[in-house]
This record gives sequence, structure tokens and C-alpha cells, in this order.
Amino acid sequence: MSKPVALIVGAGPGISIAFAEALVKSGYVVGVASRNLEKLRPLAESVGARPFVVDASSANSIVELFQSVEAGLGPPDVVLFNPSARIRGDLLSLDTAAAAVAIQTTAIGALVTAQEAARRMLPRGRGTLLFTGATAGIKGFARSSVFAMGKFAVRGLAQSLARELGPQGIHVVHFVIDGGVVQGSEDLELFTPRAIAQSYMAAIAQPKGAWSWEIELRSNVEPF
Amino acid sequence: MSKPVALIVGAGPGISIAFAEALVKSGYVVGVASRNLEKLRPLAESVGARPFVVDASSANSIVELFQSVEAGLGPPDVVLFNPSARIRGDLLSLDTAAAAVAIQTTAIGALVTAQEAARRMLPRGRGTLLFTGATAGIKGFARSSVFAMGKFAVRGLAQSLARELGPQGIHVVHFVIDGGVVQGSEDLELFTPRAIAQSYMAAIAQPKGAWSWEIELRSNVEPF
Amino acid sequence: MSKPVALIVGAGPGISIAFAEALVKSGYVVGVASRNLEKLRPLAESVGARPFVVDASSANSIVELFQSVEAGLGPPDVVLFNPSARIRGDLLSLDTAAAAVAIQTTAIGALVTAQEAARRMLPRGRGTLLFTGATAGIKGFARSSVFAMGKFAVRGLAQSLARELGPQGIHVVHFVIDGGVVQGSEDLELFTPRAIAQSYMAAIAQPKGAWSWEIELRSNVEPF
Amino acid sequence: MSKPVALIVGAGPGISIAFAEALVKSGYVVGVASRNLEKLRPLAESVGARPFVVDASSANSIVELFQSVEAGLGPPDVVLFNPSARIRGDLLSLDTAAAAVAIQTTAIGALVTAQEAARRMLPRGRGTLLFTGATAGIKGFARSSVFAMGKFAVRGLAQSLARELGPQGIHVVHFVIDGGVVQGSEDLELFTPRAIAQSYMAAIAQPKGAWSWEIELRSNVEPF
Repeated sequence: MSKPVALIVGAGPGISIAFAEALVKSGYVVGVASRNLEKLRPLAESVGARPFVVDASSANSIVELFQSVEAGLGPPDVVLFNPSARIRGDLLSLDTAAAAVAIQTTAIGALVTAQEAARRMLPRGRGTLLFTGATAGIKGFARSSVFAMGKFAVRGLAQSLARELGPQGIHVVHFVIDGGVVQGSEDLELFTPRAIAQSYMAAIAQPKGAWSWEIELRSNVEPF
Repeated sequence: MSKPVALIVGAGPGISIAFAEALVKSGYVVGVASRNLEKLRPLAESVGARPFVVDASSANSIVELFQSVEAGLGPPDVVLFNPSARIRGDLLSLDTAAAAVAIQTTAIGALVTAQEAARRMLPRGRGTLLFTGATAGIKGFARSSVFAMGKFAVRGLAQSLARELGPQGIHVVHFVIDGGVVQGSEDLELFTPRAIAQSYMAAIAQPKGAWSWEIELRSNVEPF
Repeated sequence: MSKPVALIVGAGPGISIAFAEALVKSGYVVGVASRNLEKLRPLAESVGARPFVVDASSANSIVELFQSVEAGLGPPDVVLFNPSARIRGDLLSLDTAAAAVAIQTTAIGALVTAQEAARRMLPRGRGTLLFTGATAGIKGFARSSVFAMGKFAVRGLAQSLARELGPQGIHVVHFVIDGGVVQGSEDLELFTPRAIAQSYMAAIAQPKGAWSWEIELRSNVEPF
Repeated sequence: MSKPVALIVGAGPGISIAFAEALVKSGYVVGVASRNLEKLRPLAESVGARPFVVDASSANSIVELFQSVEAGLGPPDVVLFNPSARIRGDLLSLDTAAAAVAIQTTAIGALVTAQEAARRMLPRGRGTLLFTGATAGIKGFARSSVFAMGKFAVRGLAQSLARELGPQGIHVVHFVIDGGVVQGSEDLELFTPRAIAQSYMAAIAQPKGAWSWEIELRSNVEPF
């Protein structure tokens, strides 16, 4: 039997790479994709994943990514959508054209990724589709309206798809990452990518009979 | 003292016109705006409101609307953003380009409207900014992922702005309209525009000391 | 036609008396009930309400209250349940017997009040049943576990009854009071009983076609 | 090093026994407690757990249970509170005395269990405290007001304790079990105790750096 395949859209030196590493250790063939292939390559190599290029603000680019991954690794069993464009500032200071691009990347990028993933999972009646969200997806903070719009939109998408695709065998999970992720450490007592990735792995291991559609994660000392 | 001014963006024969009528009866000068001026004119006249044209999918068009309203009626004290583009269908059947336009209209349209409203309200330290939302903004239904994305995004925007603008005197309210609105009736025992508009009027009457940022409305027989 | 009747269970110098005053001004005959009749009497007189005695921790006492009110004023059209026993402290410091009494007062008191109110409203197919809740009913704070239990329980009760009694014509509303109420002032720009009572009055005026089951209230400067 | 100890309060032939079995297989010494020792004994033996007696409606009985467990097995590292008294029926049909007993069992039982668990975990700065909740704890259904009160109360307690005890090293988790659990099957594709217990085990394995305070579980075909 061939190895299962995972694809991480919007990979960088954080949760996505820690998850890629855990997937590789569990026997997955893993593709990781981001805009800057040069930056991604050493990261990918360090965990044994295959680097791909993608511009999440472009639907065509996402479509092509899935074609390349399918050709190179096979159809993905696990797909994580990770990118989010963060724009901050008072309402009056916001550039609404930049806001539109941010929403396009975050929300439409998530939709296209979901579509391409489902296209390959539905015929086989199984697969896992993960979204990295944030507290901003359940609580709209002041001076963060565009980030709130994008993260709320992704959460709405994930919840809708959980209802739509679940009965067809696709497990959709939305992660609510609460707090600043501590980079450059592997300490499981801190809110590190590695501590977080453990729950991503637990989510993909949930049996069909008992799924979570949303998983909120924070360190034990994070106020909420 | 001059009359207060209200502007309804995305007016049609439903909640928006019933609200316009109630505002006029309470002494407001009311502008109502929609894409099709010919269809809007008789509706506007029937309730004593002034018709304006706007294409909510265009930021420029919204900016121009506010300029016209300010020149013709004065700076608005109350602004309602009402439009929403509804796309339904299985994930695989969705046209992602159409989805992007829908999000642009619903979410970015709401953002630009908020910005133009706040630009005129903040200097005076008061004003009310209303958003018509739906149950789809708090519950993502199957085969309705694009509608969920748009309505979740508007809710995230409204919540963020409630936190940001409230302390500066601007009351932001997000309405959750639950259930199919019964058109063509004025029966207050049914989920009619007129029954709903009564709570829009109550919201704008809330004193600064006790505001609601979200108001959920449904008929007494609507299951939830 | 005789005047409508309102009953406030757990009245004190705050929201309940401000609401009683607003009801009297709107033409209601109002009964207000609390444990200490001596303290209540001058408050009741000051707003034109009739004082009654009740011990909300005793089901029998609540049953007797409704009998007295029905005999003296008629069956109530509007009933507000207001009491809550507040116990604070670290988990290990809590007296669990006192906690049980607090839950009995807050949650079972609310249930018995609802039952006695519904007993008199259902035969007429109308009425309004209000609960004063708090942010503690939607967010369980540290060192406030007993208060959280009581307020969550009341919210669960209210939501269940909104679903159960709504189709039978009884409007059930749960208020989420967020922030410290400013006593001894009538300033509508502060979180005063009078500012809050305005939304209680708006709730009982909602037509059957467009009800809210929950209304969250906070001052414009309250962080949330 | 001695084996870790787990205690399940309110054990029966469902989630609790499946969880006990998984704990035993992972190397825990497990105590299971319920009212009827005769019924419990063969269940406990079948999974290698030690049976204890407890009446969850009595604070004293819970206190004594923890003393017995501590004496016999050692202080527990993991405690699950499982019982809930289910009373259904129209508001007017409810026996409020029975409702009070149900709340005492469900909510005060949970509080006393939490207190006894924390008393033994806080000095060691670690431990996991689990609550089995239900959809009724986040949605109050019609004709289920007493069940809603109890389950909302337990959720409020759990959320408050997650905030209070988390920074002191105690992991508090509230499970939302959505749907009818399929008894008598071990099929991981159905909503069976065994499928559910897998997520209980994943929760206790979460590292301190990335905890969930609430985990919602349902089968892939359960509508929500």
C-alpha cells in the first residue's frame, strides 16, 4: 500500500512546518507550499517534505498547486490551509483595496483550496481538510476589522463544509489558535508549533464515529 | 434644529423600506440607495424617502453615494448596510470567481460603507451604524458556504467596529434575521418587515449607557 | 379594559425598581417582591408599585407570592425574575453547602417562577417572562465558579423556555447585563438602571412576529 | 515510578467504561465509581478497573469516595465527572423538588468532585479534570429545561475552572457529546463509547503548551 499524502498550503516556519514534520514521522508523504520557494526549500528539507510554490491570493495558482502535487505525490489525504493576510489599523486608516486583497487571500484562498481538496477526496469518500484559524475568528477585536472579517469568513466556510462534507466522509476541522505562537522553541510547556501540531495530529486520527469540527488551543497560562 | 438624516445602503422592498418608513415617521430625512434607480424610485416615494443609486460591489460607487447624500441631505446620523449576495450550491459546483464578487459586495461593501459613515460620524462623536445579518452569520449551513463566508465576515466586521467605535460614541449594531421574511404583509404577528423594523427603531433609541451590539430576531413560531 | 399586571421577583434598588417605575408610567399595575418587606416598602411606594414578600430560595414562598399577586392585582402579564446569589472565591475555599443554597435560589427559584408565571399565561396564550442574567452566564470567570453555575443555569432555562413557550405565545427574554450597574444616578449616558430599563420596556413591546430571546446590554465604554 | 491514577465518578456501561479501559491499557490504575456496586463490579472487572461506591447527589459521599481512592490507589492524576440526572417534560409538568435533586446531582456533584480533585492535584501542580457534557449544555431544548439547567451549569463550572486552575497546572476539559451514543458496539465508524474515548485519551495527552478547554464530538453523519 502506498503512503498517505498531505499538503500544506501556506507553509512557513511555524505550525505548518511542525505539522509537516509530525506527518512525515507518521509515514506521510508531505508537500508544503508557499509563495517564496527559496525560503521554503531549506525548511521543507529540514523535515523531509517536498516544497511547492503557490500564491494563495490567486485561484489559478492554487489549482495548479493541486495538479502538481497530485502528479508528483498523488492525491492528498490531508490538506491544511494556513495563510492569512493580517491588516491592522483604525477603520479610517484602512486601505480598502488592500483589505479586498487580504480577504481574497484569506477567504477565497481557503474556498479554492477546499474545492481542490474535495475534488480529490470526495471520489474516495475520505480525507481531512484543516484550517488554521485564530481567536480573531470568534472575537472581532478593535482596530482589527479586516483580520476579523477574514478569520470569521474562514470559520464560516469551515463550519459550512463540516456540515456539507462530513456525511460524505471528509473530516473538516477549524483550529482556533489563541495567543502568540512561540517560535524557535520545541518546549511542549509553551505555545510552540510542536505543542500545537500534536493536536493537529490527534484531529486527523479521530475516527469517523467521533469527530470534532473545531478545536481551540491555548497555553495553560494564556488568559481567555 | 435640522432634521436627523438616515441612509440605507442596499434598499429593496423588505426590511429596508419598512425601516425607512419608520424613520420618516419619526422625523428623519431618509435616503435609500440601490443599484436600480427605476425600481427604487416608486418604493422611495411611497414612504417619503429620497432615492439614490449605488453599486455595493464598487468601493467608488459607495464613496460617491455618501458624497451625494451629504450634499443633498446632510451627513447621516444613522446608516444601515443591507445588501448581501447569496450564492448557494455544493462546494464543487461553486464558481469561485462569482464567489469572490459576492464576498466583495457583502464584506468589502460593508467595510467601505462603515468607513464612509464613520468619516462623517466620528467628528461629531455620535451616530448609529447598522448591519442586517442573518442566521448564516452565526451558523454555516451545508451547501451555503459562500453565503456563510460573507455573513460571518460582516458579523466579524460589526463586532470589531462595535468595540472600536463604541467608546467614540458610534453605536454599531448587527441584526441576526432568523427566518424567511414575509413580504407584502404588515401583520406584526408574522415575521414581516414592519415587525422587524420596530426593533431597528428600538436599537437606534437605545441610550449610550445601555447598548446592544447584536440583536437576534425571529417570529415566535420559528424553530431555533 | 383592566390594566395589565407586572410582577418583579427579587426587587431591589437597581434595574428592578427602574423597570417597575417604567412599567407604572406605561400603565401597568406592578407588584414588586423581595425578602425584606421593610426595606422594599419605601422603594415600592416611590415608584407606585405594590410591595410583596418572597423568599426566592423557597419554592413554596414563590408559589404563595403568585397566589397573593393574582388575588391582589390579577394574573401577571409580565414577570421578571431578578435574584441571584453571588458567591465568589477560589475553588478550594468554597463552602459547597452554601453553593447548593445559591444554586437553589438562582436556578430553582427561576424555574419555579417560570412555572408559576406560565401557569397563568398559557391559558391566555400570551405574556412575557424576563430573566436578568449577567456576562457570567456566557463566560465563566476564574474564582467565580458558583456564580457561573447559577447564571449559566438560568440562561439554559431561559433558552429552553424560549423554544418551548414561544410558539404558545409566551415571550421569554434573557438579559445579559455586562458591567457594573451605576446606582443612584439617572444618567442615560452611564450604565444606570434607568438606561437599562429602557431595553426591558422595548423587549416587552416587541411584536410576536419579531422577538429577541436574548438581549445583551453594556455601556458604550465597557470593554468586551 | 508508580503508575498514574485515574478516577471516574459516575461510571456506567458507556463512555466511562470505554475510557476506563483505554486508561488501563495506557498504564493507569483506574477506579470507577457508581451508586450500584453490584452492577458496577462486573463492568469494572471486565476492563481491569477497581470498583467504588458513590452517591453523586451527596457531597459527603463524594468526599468519602476520594478518601477511599486515595487510600487504595493513591491521589488521582485524572478525574472524570460523568453523571447527569435527566428530567424531561413540559414546564408545567415538572416536579420542582425532583428538579432540585437533579441539579444537586449534576451541578453540585460536579463542583464537589472538582473540589476534591483539585485538593489533591494543586499541591502537585498537575492533573486533568474532565467533565462529560452534552449539546444540552450549549443549546437549551424545548421540554428539557431541567436538563439544560444542569448541563449549562456544569459547562459554566468547567469554563470557570479552566480559567482558574489552568495557570496552576490543572487541565480542565469539558466534552460536548452530541448525539445518541451507540451502546454495545466497538465500531469506530459509529458514535460508540470507544470512538469517543479516543478523544478523551487525546485530551489527557495534550501538552501544557497547547490545551483545549472544550471538545465537541459527534459522528460524521450527525446533523448539527
